[in-house]
Amino acid sequence: MAGQGPRNVPVDEALVVGVDYGTLSGRAVIVRVRDGAELGSAVHEYPHAVMERALTAGPAAAAGSPIALAPDWALQVPADYVDVLRTAVPAAIRAAQDAFGIDPANVIGIGTDFTACTMVATTADGTPLAELPEFADRPHAYVKLWKHHSAQPHADRITALALERGESWIPRYGGLISSEWEFAKGLQLLEEDREVYDATEHWVEAADWIIWQLSGQYVRNACTAGYKGILQDGVYPSRDFLAALNPDFADFVDAKVAHPIGQLGAPAGTLTAQAAEWTGLPEGIAVAVGNVDAHVTSPAANACEPGQMVAIMGTSTCHVMNGRALHEVPGMCGVVDGGIVEGLWGYEAGQSGVGDIFGWFVNSAVPPAYVAAAADRGLSVHAYLTELAAAQEIGEHGLVALDWHSGNRSVLVDHELSGVVVGQTLLTKPEDTYRALLEATAFGTRTIVEAFETSGVPVTELVVAGGLLKNALLMQIYADVTRLPLSTIVSEQGPALGSAIHAAVAAGAYPDVRAAAKVMGHRVVAAYTPIEANAVRYDALFAEYTLLHDYFGRGANDVMHRLKAIRRAAIGGRA
Amino acid sequence: MAGQGPRNVPVDEALVVGVDYGTLSGRAVIVRVRDGAELGSAVHEYPHAVMERALTAGPAAAAGSPIALAPDWALQVPADYVDVLRTAVPAAIRAAQDAFGIDPANVIGIGTDFTACTMVATTADGTPLAELPEFADRPHAYVKLWKHHSAQPHADRITALALERGESWIPRYGGLISSEWEFAKGLQLLEEDREVYDATEHWVEAADWIIWQLSGQYVRNACTAGYKGILQDGVYPSRDFLAALNPDFADFVDAKVAHPIGQLGAPAGTLTAQAAEWTGLPEGIAVAVGNVDAHVTSPAANACEPGQMVAIMGTSTCHVMNGRALHEVPGMCGVVDGGIVEGLWGYEAGQSGVGDIFGWFVNSAVPPAYVAAAADRGLSVHAYLTELAAAQEIGEHGLVALDWHSGNRSVLVDHELSGVVVGQTLLTKPEDTYRALLEATAFGTRTIVEAFETSGVPVTELVVAGGLLKNALLMQIYADVTRLPLSTIVSEQGPALGSAIHAAVAAGAYPDVRAAAKVMGHRVVAAYTPIEANAVRYDALFAEYTLLHDYFGRGANDVMHRLKAIRRAAIGGRA
Repeated sequence: MAGQGPRNVPVDEALVVGVDYGTLSGRAVIVRVRDGAELGSAVHEYPHAVMERALTAGPAAAAGSPIALAPDWALQVPADYVDVLRTAVPAAIRAAQDAFGIDPANVIGIGTDFTACTMVATTADGTPLAELPEFADRPHAYVKLWKHHSAQPHADRITALALERGESWIPRYGGLISSEWEFAKGLQLLEEDREVYDATEHWVEAADWIIWQLSGQYVRNACTAGYKGILQDGVYPSRDFLAALNPDFADFVDAKVAHPIGQLGAPAGTLTAQAAEWTGLPEGIAVAVGNVDAHVTSPAANACEPGQMVAIMGTSTCHVMNGRALHEVPGMCGVVDGGIVEGLWGYEAGQSGVGDIFGWFVNSAVPPAYVAAAADRGLSVHAYLTELAAAQEIGEHGLVALDWHSGNRSVLVDHELSGVVVGQTLLTKPEDTYRALLEATAFGTRTIVEAFETSGVPVTELVVAGGLLKNALLMQIYADVTRLPLSTIVSEQGPALGSAIHAAVAAGAYPDVRAAAKVMGHRVVAAYTPIEANAVRYDALFAEYTLLHDYFGRGANDVMHRLKAIRRAAIGGRA
Repeated sequence: MAGQGPRNVPVDEALVVGVDYGTLSGRAVIVRVRDGAELGSAVHEYPHAVMERALTAGPAAAAGSPIALAPDWALQVPADYVDVLRTAVPAAIRAAQDAFGIDPANVIGIGTDFTACTMVATTADGTPLAELPEFADRPHAYVKLWKHHSAQPHADRITALALERGESWIPRYGGLISSEWEFAKGLQLLEEDREVYDATEHWVEAADWIIWQLSGQYVRNACTAGYKGILQDGVYPSRDFLAALNPDFADFVDAKVAHPIGQLGAPAGTLTAQAAEWTGLPEGIAVAVGNVDAHVTSPAANACEPGQMVAIMGTSTCHVMNGRALHEVPGMCGVVDGGIVEGLWGYEAGQSGVGDIFGWFVNSAVPPAYVAAAADRGLSVHAYLTELAAAQEIGEHGLVALDWHSGNRSVLVDHELSGVVVGQTLLTKPEDTYRALLEATAFGTRTIVEAFETSGVPVTELVVAGGLLKNALLMQIYADVTRLPLSTIVSEQGPALGSAIHAAVAAGAYPDVRAAAKVMGHRVVAAYTPIEANAVRYDALFAEYTLLHDYFGRGANDVMHRLKAIRRAAIGGRA
């Protein structure tokens, strides 16, 4: 780090802004470049939140007749993202001024991260089609949020065709193209609203669209282009492949997707006058290439080195890790060259259900006496059950569970799988099952770690970010089950800090993201370490988990698939 | 039925008394012989209830220092049974006098049924050893209730030795001798309290001991002698066999067990003067041979014919059925010549957990909102969940469960098995799992029915008694799942009515129990009939149940045994 920073800001006083675009709100944080200290932050909730049942934007909604949306739709309004720049960024600056007396003139760069894959259909200049009067009442013109899942049939066709043709890129995604991704959503658009499709001149990740608003430059970031856009070894799926899906889809890449790629941490451009006006930041500061929430968390935890698996544990868990070489890990979500930091292969894996399984159990399977006891103690039900579970010996509950209530992403890649609990008796108490579910998710992580290791991608440290790191019992279980030192991120706003780190790199304050992460990112190294006596006892339970995992998950008994089919047949159109 | 009944009581006015000895109380009912009408009843709770933690009778208890009991002990006080004769019988008579103006002089007989196997150690004249001053503080001198389970190691040795030696009688018990039965409890007595064992001149079923008190005659009833006393083809286990268990056990049968057998419905003797004084009944009336609660329910439901499987459904389910010939049904509890009615083979099978599984779920896995909603509606939680479950289509819940929370009696005979639920998702609601558990117990019954049928013992009608028959959804599920017409017993005090029927036969009012049952027993024939469209849908779920049943229950994956072993190791001495 030079003695004098970019734009002649004194190094010790240089600041960056990170903006984390989540599902319901955007969070801005002001970060000191020299040490990563977070000096102020603010959140802005999107006025339209997520539109799932009806289009609450547009003339029809304004006239009181909002257009209904089909099941599994999830839309957003692009202007809501700009509102975050206009409100949360200035508010974060004010907070940092109030608390630390910072000078906004010392901000040298801004970076953002976004949910992904979240797609915006735009004109040539980046105007969202939703903002054109002729499309303002057309659902397909709005932003398709990551959890817009109605392109599942399209995704299924893409996956099946890729497997059938033996496309070289399909193993890079663990054998599955998600309904959330660019091609599935694009094919849905083509086949369901041809006019909007034809008017789409760019099919843009929201991660890149927001950078376009800040810098005036459209740059596709390497992360989403690889993980969500099927860009592998510099090429996209072929015209042949696309034409086989639908003849009119043949030029999808050439006409709407292909665009220059920006590496993570590189500058996409500089802050425009208009964006400077929105944010109150100096015009001309660096704007970093766009990025994804999970992936930017890696530098925020200073965990960008090969072998450091970062698990962002919330309702679900996303695992990201760098490796020196390309390996095809069965059931991973994706592997992308430079997908997390430039120069390394970025691996991603996932567990479809983690915190949401615990939440489901707490909301639907805990009796009144427990809820009352927790309230008497001033504890959440989670905390109360955790306390009771923590008092148990390992294996005392006599249970083993499979954590598939939301299906299984890695390593089985099967959304039709479902939950199992084995071993309940008339003496089984709520804390028994709760603990078995905690353990099941740890066994799921161990299964993923072992898949990486047997594929030639060693894992040497588990780094946890996300809300669940507050549960000390859960953390110790993960350390014991995986026999890995478990570190925890320090920041409570990891993605925003990670974006700020990218901003610092884009501004030239550090040579690359790995170097910046070492200074600005922080984790408690080995906050939990495996206790060998515990690990040995968990080995016995993990062996049972694995037996059941393979029995129910690898075709020996497809009962879960059949139960889902029976359910669908039973409820008919009501689903 | 002759125009003039026994003891010259006019036939139309003849009455009988049935006394049902349950786990916590005895119930007397006054029944009209000509039609089985129940004219009055009364209940008396045993003053000492069940002694499980300490001996609350005897001098030590009176002095304020009750003797502690080990886990799995369950004792009773014989005098409590006599109290029922002194209180409940007169009270039932008074009730019948008040309501119907009956004359106690018209009572022509009394019959009883008892929990089994419940054992009394007595002197030669039937005095319980517990009533001798020298043994009044010795736990082993008290009545060992059916659920006294601490003779499990002894039962295990008996079973293992019988299988090893290929004893001809072991298949008659589905390959398992229970810890509840006469020989296991006797061997425990020998090995744990030699003085009490040596002082025991008769090892008496409580079912027979109470008849001894009423009639002054000790007669062993054919039912318990067969099902609990291993009397098969007229012989008991051999001296050789007993000596191999323990040399001092060699003369157990000869010295303490063997005794003349009375057939069910036969008179054991007549009411003694003392018993007449206790009960207020006429001295000299017929006293029927003793019997067991489940087995007397068969005539009470008028369901004594071959093919009529009577399921007494409460916390667990006991199945009893007559057959014309001897067949060895895998996993049955027992088959006894004349075990239910004279002249037919009486078959017994069981499900270890039924209502108690539903109760466990309601108590430990239903959230406050449901409990509150049930209360608002004035419903029990069971009724509320049943109402919600009844609104579902078959298979809508997407679940299949195994009903083994208390182990599996028939057909797997494995107490180390445990519960399973497969298919839960984040959308699974309490009523979903509740219904899956209801269905699982129905699948368990179908498994038993199929075992009988494939063994040459056809089942043509399912007759339900016990508290669960009030659940109409459950009954329809059982009819649909088994594809059997499902009849329900009319009496709410089936065992006491069944005992009264035996009294009528013993008094000579009917030629045999089957004839008496046709007049005095009542059921709603085919109260529920299988709906073929439902049955077809359940077939698909039953196929899944069977796959899991065999996978977890027949050795493919012994995870449940291993989880129990892990649990025992984890909790060490705390169990």
